[in-house]
Parts: sequence; C-alpha cells; structure tokens
Amino acid sequence: MLIVGELINSTRKAIAQAIEHRDKAYLQDLARRQVDAGAHIIDVNAAAGGNEVENMKWLVEVVQEAVDAPLCIDSPSAAALEAGLSLCRQKAMVNSITAEKQRWEEVLPLVQQYRARVVALCMDDGGMPETVEDRLRVAGKLVPGLVEAGIPEEDIYMDPLIKPLGVNSQFGMEALESTRAIRQKYPKVHAICGLSNVSYGLPERRLLNRAFMVMSVTVGMDAFILDPLDQEMMSLLAAARALAGQDEYCMDYIAGVRAGKVKA
Amino acid sequence: MLIVGELINSTRKAIAQAIEHRDKAYLQDLARRQVDAGAHIIDVNAAAGGNEVENMKWLVEVVQEAVDAPLCIDSPSAAALEAGLSLCRQKAMVNSITAEKQRWEEVLPLVQQYRARVVALCMDDGGMPETVEDRLRVAGKLVPGLVEAGIPEEDIYMDPLIKPLGVNSQFGMEALESTRAIRQKYPKVHAICGLSNVSYGLPERRLLNRAFMVMSVTVGMDAFILDPLDQEMMSLLAAARALAGQDEYCMDYIAGVRAGKVKA
Repeated sequence: MLIVGELINSTRKAIAQAIEHRDKAYLQDLARRQVDAGAHIIDVNAAAGGNEVENMKWLVEVVQEAVDAPLCIDSPSAAALEAGLSLCRQKAMVNSITAEKQRWEEVLPLVQQYRARVVALCMDDGGMPETVEDRLRVAGKLVPGLVEAGIPEEDIYMDPLIKPLGVNSQFGMEALESTRAIRQKYPKVHAICGLSNVSYGLPERRLLNRAFMVMSVTVGMDAFILDPLDQEMMSLLAAARALAGQDEYCMDYIAGVRAGKVKA
Repeated sequence: MLIVGELINSTRKAIAQAIEHRDKAYLQDLARRQVDAGAHIIDVNAAAGGNEVENMKWLVEVVQEAVDAPLCIDSPSAAALEAGLSLCRQKAMVNSITAEKQRWEEVLPLVQQYRARVVALCMDDGGMPETVEDRLRVAGKLVPGLVEAGIPEEDIYMDPLIKPLGVNSQFGMEALESTRAIRQKYPKVHAICGLSNVSYGLPERRLLNRAFMVMSVTVGMDAFILDPLDQEMMSLLAAARALAGQDEYCMDYIAGVRAGKVKA
C-alpha cells in the first residue's frame, strides 16, 4: 500500500499563498506532518498562479530540505514536471500521463529519463471515460505503451478516473469495477486514485471519501493520493489493509493502535 | 439493505440481567432506540441463563409492546425458536438454520410453518467451513434444500460465517470472497453477517467491524446484524450504500445528513 500525501497542492488557497509568500516554514511543517502521519510520498503541485516552473523548483527544494520521502511531481505542464524532476534526489513519481496524444508525447520522455513512477489516467483524446469498458480500452493502450517504452510494470499506477457520485449514482461502482478489472488484467501494475472527486458536490465529503477508500481496497486499489492528516481515514486504512490480508498477523494494525495513531 | 439490531442479546451481561429482573423499561428503550437509529428488525436472544422458553416468550411480548418492527428470533434451541415465533405479530426472521442434520430437521419445519425469513449459516456436520469452496459447497446444500421446502429465495439470508482475523490474516478475504461467490451464484438470495466475530481478540474492534462492513457492502452483502447505535457505523453504512449505487440520487444519504444522523 502506497500513500501519497496530497496536501501541498496549490489548488488549495493556503498553499498557493504559502508558495507566493515563500512561506518555507509552513510548507516544510506540512511535509513533515504528512510523513509522520504515514505518507510514503509527498505530492507537490505549484500550478496555480503564474511562474509555475520557478515555483516548482523552489517548492521541490523546500520540501526536500524537510523530509527524505520521495516526491510526486504534479503538474499539467511538461516544463514544470521536468523542472521538478530534475531536482529530485529520490526516485520520483510523475502525476500524470494520459493516452492523449500530446500529453503522452510530452510526458513519456520525462518518465523514461528520470526512471520515475508514473500515474497513468484512463483518458485519451476521446475525453473522460464513461464505462468500465472505456477504461479498460484506454488501459489497454497505456500499459502496453509504457511497458514498450521501457517503464517497468511495477512503476505504473493506473488511475481509473473517478467521477462525482452526485452526478450519477453508478459512478462509484463503475470506478470500483474498473479497478478490479484493471488489477485482474495487469496484476503487476498498481491502481491509484485521489479520494475527493467521488464526493464532489455532496455533504459530509470526508465520510464518503473514507468509505470509498475502504471499498477501493476491497477491489485491489493499492495506492492512494489522500490527506494523511485525516486520522479517521488513516485508521480505516489500517483496518482495511488488515482485513484485506495485507498485514500479516495484523502487526501494523496493532502497532498503529499502540502508537495511538489507529483508533475507532 | 436490511439492518438487524443486535443489542437485545442475552450473551451481553446487561441484557441477561435485564431479562432476569424483568426490567421491561430498559429493554423497551433499547428496542426503540435501535429502531430510531435505523434497525429494520430487532434481534431477540434469551438463551443465557435458564428458563429460555419462558424468557423468550416474555421478551418477545415486551419488545413488541414497544416497537412495530419485526423480530429476529435468535436461539440455539428449537423450542425457544418456536416459543418466540408463535408470538410474533409480524413476519419474523429465524436465527438460524444450518446444514447440520439435527439443526436442519428441527428448524426447517418452523421456518415453513411461520413463513419466516431465515438466516442460514454455511456450516454442516463437517464443522466450520475452512475455504471459499467449503462455503459454496454448504450453500449448495442449504439454498436448494430451502427452496425445495417452499422457502422463497428472497427469504433466505446466507451467512458465510466469518472467523477471527486475529487467528489468520486471510480470514477477512475468505469471508468477502465467499460472499461475492454466493451472491453471484444465487442473486435472489441475500447475504447477511454479524460484525463482531471478525475483530475478536484484536484492539479497537469497532474500527475493524466498521471497515469490514464497508468491505462487505462492496462485494454484495445486503444485510447486517449490527449495533445500530454505533453512529460511525451507521454513517459509513449510508455512505457505502450510496457509493455502491444503492441509493438513487444519494437521497437517503443526504436526508441522513440533514437529520444529523449521518456525519463524518
């Protein structure tokens, strides 16, 4: 199970401001707290506002000063991805590639050059996927394409693209079935998702996000981009891992309880 | 989704005492609170201590005085089951039948006579099931046997029998895979389980019980014997139902949030 801490993302207003004001202490504290709470990788996104390349460079340096954890370089811009990747001291994760022609051509060389892990969204020039079959069809381009380009299957993290449940009551199950199907077809490839899209527009979003995380673990999701400071989320994740048979003798679960991090 | 409120069970010390002291007010309050919290059926168990038949009769009358909800008559004794069933004003649930020869022969006529719903445990004279295949084999005796005896598939609630995760890290996944397989093979038959066995012997049991409930919904469990006064449990259940596409337009979820019953 791989946890990517999502909090250093400039689409959050506090983060955009901290980047703008070069508030190093705030961002470093947030990086440290995410690692302490169980994040294995720290997502960094500097896309909001201008000067993304400059901001990304600064942000990567600042976060690496604070924590040893690898980074997930998150940007819609290939130039910003490259700026971030070029500074990473550890094996990075690229967020993200898609099967859209332009994105594929821009991002693939970076994943190759920096031998990075990569989040691959089930999306092509046909737009957002509608059905489980759509997602499998796009995964059927992405996985073989990445493998052919020399990316090991173990470094690929397929994101089924989860759409808001408030728009259509079947969107949760569609994403879960897609995840199960992708993991069955490509057992060495990972499945990853963010946990906020699904609850968009609905009340008590954290509750839906937590329940969706547990459901995803059940169908084979093995990586999440989430808020590790949500202790209920992290407690449920520890429980779900144990229940899914991924925690021998429930040792991590019990250690988490003893440390006061895992609680009902 | 069917919720059986589990709290009026004499294996709990407070309940055994309330039955012994004929503490009607305590038991009626507990029945009402469970219904208010969302239980559709109230389990009644008077098996601890002596005089089970007398106690069961008293308990059934007391609970029916307080709530209109149907009852789940819960006993290892056929005589106590019959005593309870004979007094039920609504269509009852029998907890439980198994494929063990004696149990089958004693309980089947009661299910037939009282046209009751029935919890059927995946267990035969060979003992507790070990594997998914074991459970499917026993289900393959129980479901056709009950249907042949005139019990509608819709009234059958298969319990896969969940064993403690603390004993073997794979017991959670075994139960989940069994549930999926049973629901796939018999789509009109329900799947039910209690939520406390899985966490037996582990710390922070409620957390494991909640996570297991959400995982079970993902694989098709559609009935639970649980503590409806656990608000986190009931909130996660509302979220899981919505995410599983069982709550059109998330109407129940949203209504629960508005009523203050569903919260993160």
